[in-house]
Amino acid sequence: MIDLVISLDSTSARPLYEQIYDFIKTEIQNGGLPVAERLPSSRILAKQLEVSRSTVTLAYEQLVSEGYIENRPHRGYFINDLAGLYRLDPVKQRRKLRPDEAKAEEYRYDFSPAGVDLKSFPYNIWRKLTKELLAADSQELFRLSEPQGERELRETMALYLHHARGVRCTAEQIIIGAGNDYLMMLLQLILGDTRICAMERLTYRKAADILKLLGNEVISVEMDEYGLRTDALKHSGASLIYVMPSHQFPLGTVMPVKRRAELLAWAADGADRFIIEDDYDSEFRYKGRPIPALQGYDTLDRVIYIGTFSKSIAPSIRISFMVLPLSLMERYCSVGARFSTTVSRLDQKLLTEFIRGGYYERHLNRMRGIYKGRHDILMDELKKLRHLVEVSGEHAGTHVLLHMKNGMTEREAVESAKNAGIRVYELSSYGLEKTKEMHTILLGYANLSEKEIPQAVRSLAGCWDTYQTKTS
Amino acid sequence: MIDLVISLDSTSARPLYEQIYDFIKTEIQNGGLPVAERLPSSRILAKQLEVSRSTVTLAYEQLVSEGYIENRPHRGYFINDLAGLYRLDPVKQRRKLRPDEAKAEEYRYDFSPAGVDLKSFPYNIWRKLTKELLAADSQELFRLSEPQGERELRETMALYLHHARGVRCTAEQIIIGAGNDYLMMLLQLILGDTRICAMERLTYRKAADILKLLGNEVISVEMDEYGLRTDALKHSGASLIYVMPSHQFPLGTVMPVKRRAELLAWAADGADRFIIEDDYDSEFRYKGRPIPALQGYDTLDRVIYIGTFSKSIAPSIRISFMVLPLSLMERYCSVGARFSTTVSRLDQKLLTEFIRGGYYERHLNRMRGIYKGRHDILMDELKKLRHLVEVSGEHAGTHVLLHMKNGMTEREAVESAKNAGIRVYELSSYGLEKTKEMHTILLGYANLSEKEIPQAVRSLAGCWDTYQTKTS
Repeated sequence: MIDLVISLDSTSARPLYEQIYDFIKTEIQNGGLPVAERLPSSRILAKQLEVSRSTVTLAYEQLVSEGYIENRPHRGYFINDLAGLYRLDPVKQRRKLRPDEAKAEEYRYDFSPAGVDLKSFPYNIWRKLTKELLAADSQELFRLSEPQGERELRETMALYLHHARGVRCTAEQIIIGAGNDYLMMLLQLILGDTRICAMERLTYRKAADILKLLGNEVISVEMDEYGLRTDALKHSGASLIYVMPSHQFPLGTVMPVKRRAELLAWAADGADRFIIEDDYDSEFRYKGRPIPALQGYDTLDRVIYIGTFSKSIAPSIRISFMVLPLSLMERYCSVGARFSTTVSRLDQKLLTEFIRGGYYERHLNRMRGIYKGRHDILMDELKKLRHLVEVSGEHAGTHVLLHMKNGMTEREAVESAKNAGIRVYELSSYGLEKTKEMHTILLGYANLSEKEIPQAVRSLAGCWDTYQTKTS
Repeated sequence: MIDLVISLDSTSARPLYEQIYDFIKTEIQNGGLPVAERLPSSRILAKQLEVSRSTVTLAYEQLVSEGYIENRPHRGYFINDLAGLYRLDPVKQRRKLRPDEAKAEEYRYDFSPAGVDLKSFPYNIWRKLTKELLAADSQELFRLSEPQGERELRETMALYLHHARGVRCTAEQIIIGAGNDYLMMLLQLILGDTRICAMERLTYRKAADILKLLGNEVISVEMDEYGLRTDALKHSGASLIYVMPSHQFPLGTVMPVKRRAELLAWAADGADRFIIEDDYDSEFRYKGRPIPALQGYDTLDRVIYIGTFSKSIAPSIRISFMVLPLSLMERYCSVGARFSTTVSRLDQKLLTEFIRGGYYERHLNRMRGIYKGRHDILMDELKKLRHLVEVSGEHAGTHVLLHMKNGMTEREAVESAKNAGIRVYELSSYGLEKTKEMHTILLGYANLSEKEIPQAVRSLAGCWDTYQTKTS
């Protein structure tokens, strides 16, 4: 039998049994107690430590639970053989995980094309709806939602998408998920194999990255004024296309109906070809009616429609949706539906109420008005830069393209703006491949006020005019 | 030039330009207008229809935007050639997507092992915290969170996990995600290739399904009283193990420290071996202290620790977390961190406040008390069934195992309970492979009140006693 010399601290906040347990555990871990030896009986140790017997028993039982000692009936507690495998290295070497991020550069004006105006979000309504939901049947609210998403939300979405985007689907085809990246992960599992995916030469780079990380090969396809060139697909081996037909990012191209038909014909020409339609910001169009979604033209069951509330409500909302063609529903049910939903029931109900109550439409109308106001002022100001730039992509979205006419390269235009504290964006940074020097700049205006825009544009004119003077 | 015969409805709520646009679009879609022909000029059509010229121009411009017609400068609007590709099939055949779900069967008492008592959730606190957060800086709240999750939450979790579970990590190693299934998807991308994954013969089947759907091969490994048998791994080819060391589901086994050391030694024996530790319900232990997590013993950097708030807060909360070993952090940064977060900033901040404010710990203590009350009553009642069943797995979690001593098979025990309106669960349904007839039943008590448990157990005794009488 082993003799244990334990000094207990009766003034400590730690229970006595924990102190005993800790002492013996540490001794065993450090090899300080001989294997297979018997510990003093609880009666003896209790007497020795002047504690109650149950205190010792509690400590012993915990050690048994964790496997440090063994209780042999009628014989007592014995120390287990940990086979020398157990080593405890109390402090892990702290490795540097990420480089220190360079301090974010400060700009007076940032023409980010990814901006969303969060000042105008109807927080009061959101708060009110949240409060009402939490006040109602909370217990129901905390149960797990269906993998596909709440039926009510999907029904609401089906109606909304039909009415606002010309999408034709039933609630059964809609999958709710926490963001586009997640839905792309899920889609990859539904499609079942990695593919060659065609994207336009200039596009939403993040989507290309995600597709590649998921194992696909992404090929860059030439584009013309109508978008992705279908003739370039012939020998590409692609079985997937990723496009934004209603408002291409970054060029703002609207894909005309003929090109859409050609895309659908391409899909019909192979057994397992699909088109991903990313309808990311169709809500904001300033001339005429919104351009209907490609999905609505698809009689061949080949379009996967993906949309998000990140741009139209807020980036943090983490609710996106995907409309699957019927031909993929069987795969969804056998594969995708096995993954639990990624959106809480509360958030889904909140969004349902937000749409059903007409708040979403009102919010969109209001935002359209706000963005149009900024758009118009920007366009007005840019008229004064006619000698420097040509504008395109101005009918929708929240950015325009400036084609430099003064010979400046993108890099030069960006750098000279930066010196004046203004951030503008190079078109070539949206290229899938390295391209030759371009002369086009993106200006996003979602996050600049009507007062800031003229000031920022005038400063830009200042920088770029100087360049012209210098080189002419 | 084509002659258009359009009948406008001036009493309709639809704007006149939309009616003109719709008429022409439909005609083109149906092939009713000859390709390449010129449309009447806006002046002529306006006069003919007795509308303003701008109304017609608006309709024409929309048709141009969508690619149905073309505006040739100084010549007019011409109908585009849609190459016969365009077909519109207004009503999709509605296929039956899923079989009608069988009407959920009604039980008087359901001993579901997956139950969570939602009645006891501190809704008032949750409401209060939500309200406070929404009232504060809402704009900040709606920005996108870091891919890994809010730093504050990760720091809070690192502290909590250390204190409560013996997990040793920094905030940099923690990834927040919307549910375990999602984190498993992400982990698959981080691990980079599909693997042979070893799981215990009886286990959490959902995890096995997810691993398989992600492309891995899952192999079933024999287990003994200490959990997964490491000697059975030798020639298995496995490079991944999925275990629940602190409280195995469904058996309730606590993996002793020696077996843990053997697992870690197995991992160290190959260059790219990892252990997934699912610490799904470590919070609820009724005897002694909680069993520390395996991750805390891991000095070899091979344990991936996964936990969730589904069981400890609510299934709908959709927040899980994963602690990556440092050796996987580089892969995470280059792959995983490219996927946007799946949890909204509001939910992350809410949870942070819930933990920091001490509400989480209080809630857990309260739930432990509630579950222990139910557990004790159940154990008391089961004493009366000593002649029928032997109980195991009773020290933790929210279910126990009953080993039938009266010769009843699982199926028979389940069926006879069902006839009395009581739902109990077969152990073999948690098997990775079909197993021979077993005699063990699972009884979960999280969702039954202290009043219901005795009634339900008495009914069970009734059914099972009858069987004994019948066959003896």
